[in-house]
Amino acid sequence: MYISKQEIENAHQRIQKYIRKTPSIISGFGTFGLKRSISLKLEHLQHSGSFKARGAFNSLLNCTVPKAGVAAASGGNHGAAVACAAHALGIKAKIFVPEISNPAKIDKIRSFGADVHIEGAAYADAAAICTKFQQQTGAIDIHPYDAVNTINGQGTVALEWAEQNPDMDTILVAVGGGGLAAGVASFYAGTSTRVIAIEPYGSCSMHAALKAGRPVDVELNSVAANALGAKCCGTRPFEIASKHIAKSVLVEDEAILAAQRRLWREMQLVVEPGGATALAALISGAYKPEDGERIGVLLCGGNAELIQVNNTLSGR
Amino acid sequence: MYISKQEIENAHQRIQKYIRKTPSIISGFGTFGLKRSISLKLEHLQHSGSFKARGAFNSLLNCTVPKAGVAAASGGNHGAAVACAAHALGIKAKIFVPEISNPAKIDKIRSFGADVHIEGAAYADAAAICTKFQQQTGAIDIHPYDAVNTINGQGTVALEWAEQNPDMDTILVAVGGGGLAAGVASFYAGTSTRVIAIEPYGSCSMHAALKAGRPVDVELNSVAANALGAKCCGTRPFEIASKHIAKSVLVEDEAILAAQRRLWREMQLVVEPGGATALAALISGAYKPEDGERIGVLLCGGNAELIQVNNTLSGR
Repeated sequence: MYISKQEIENAHQRIQKYIRKTPSIISGFGTFGLKRSISLKLEHLQHSGSFKARGAFNSLLNCTVPKAGVAAASGGNHGAAVACAAHALGIKAKIFVPEISNPAKIDKIRSFGADVHIEGAAYADAAAICTKFQQQTGAIDIHPYDAVNTINGQGTVALEWAEQNPDMDTILVAVGGGGLAAGVASFYAGTSTRVIAIEPYGSCSMHAALKAGRPVDVELNSVAANALGAKCCGTRPFEIASKHIAKSVLVEDEAILAAQRRLWREMQLVVEPGGATALAALISGAYKPEDGERIGVLLCGGNAELIQVNNTLSGR
Repeated sequence: MYISKQEIENAHQRIQKYIRKTPSIISGFGTFGLKRSISLKLEHLQHSGSFKARGAFNSLLNCTVPKAGVAAASGGNHGAAVACAAHALGIKAKIFVPEISNPAKIDKIRSFGADVHIEGAAYADAAAICTKFQQQTGAIDIHPYDAVNTINGQGTVALEWAEQNPDMDTILVAVGGGGLAAGVASFYAGTSTRVIAIEPYGSCSMHAALKAGRPVDVELNSVAANALGAKCCGTRPFEIASKHIAKSVLVEDEAILAAQRRLWREMQLVVEPGGATALAALISGAYKPEDGERIGVLLCGGNAELIQVNNTLSGR
């Protein structure tokens, strides 16, 4: 199971008029306390707030959608991405959201016009109801990470970035189920650019799979688990990662929250913990680059719940 | 008092290794409820959180700095920009901050190593103390808007943007004292790109000056006044605006807050009210573009006080 650069190029052609070409920015020497300047890909500015819109658009544009439309179980970034893509393409979307989900997030999914069903105590319950609905109606499913169209779509973020910053030696990317990392690693396969997979200690399905030689279940207990928390990484992402990921690195939750805070304080960027996980590896020293190594960090998601913006900045 | 494109190019050469080349992003059709796609210049991601770092760097790099360094009175974006530039250039900075200033903002100014003096009940009191200090020590002043080096520096944001999006018909830019608008309008002078000045009704020094034919005092009462609130626009900015600003448009505070909310909800961008003011003109219809008119909106400041980011996004 490998994916060619050509397949990612095809996905790019397919989705580019629907997605945002997200910008990259060079941080500047000294930012984050680093004695180097890094490239940040601002993919958290993507439609729906994460890279997942890419895979969702690519999946819906590359299949025959039945009259029943699409259904997904998710109270998070995947649900928002499917709702967003379906809305833009005029496709019916039903999103099954577990009762534990955050109301702000449910509002975001609803803002794309999706039919939201709040059912089931936890994610697995909502997923079971969703599967039943798909079987009864023929509504299609989009897998959040373990599907070729999903991985190809996520890989387009690397294609864009390579044009914006062609000279990166190393890309740091956060891993949940592995779809994004697999897409990015597939794009850079066979080049001199290395892709490093970053996971929280408390949500490390890829790290565990690479160690065991096959996908295995892990316990989830991390501040970033709401976005990255896959109990088991995908089979396809695992196979691609085994071959094309240069290294797997783990980070502490504290390092993730520190990176999130520094992105706000030093660059005015708000990301969710999952979106700060790759940067955390660099700031905390969990990943130690060589002198002169040119680093790219992918900010993959911005759907933090922002409680309040207080407008009390004083002075002229 | 006019400024040539060449002077802005010179400022760009002078400051470019110190500032961030901030990215622009195309919003996508439908974003903000608009039936068009616009270019947003993400200048709120600049060092210190606003465009003011450009003018500060240009001023400090284009003069002989005395041993006493630089002093400024500001508890806001100007203070942060001067502290930031002085820090990067190894220059002593003393920032006089009125007692009413927001503690988070004072921390930001301190984070750049500036010597912060919290003195004086209101801005005018802190300014008087600052002027006395400058007279006693020889520390130089950087005017926040009414100085050639400041205006040239702010104009470099337009030079960058014109390279990123060469085909804009109209640029919407917020006005406080007028330094940014004057720099941007000077850069586009003599081209087919029109620059529109946007101000809150409750902080409209440029609008009032254009109406009166000279800078006049205005009352300040706007949610964006903490960043845009100049009682009187600068003489130099006024002269440049009289000739090179195509139109002056006012917006309600409610429209500013609505634009700020939409930037967060639809693009995951956090800006302060002053940073959302230009966009407010477009979303609210205060500025009505023609069909097919290609619009650029400058997001000029991001120093909102972010109280809390709650990490409760659920779902996979």
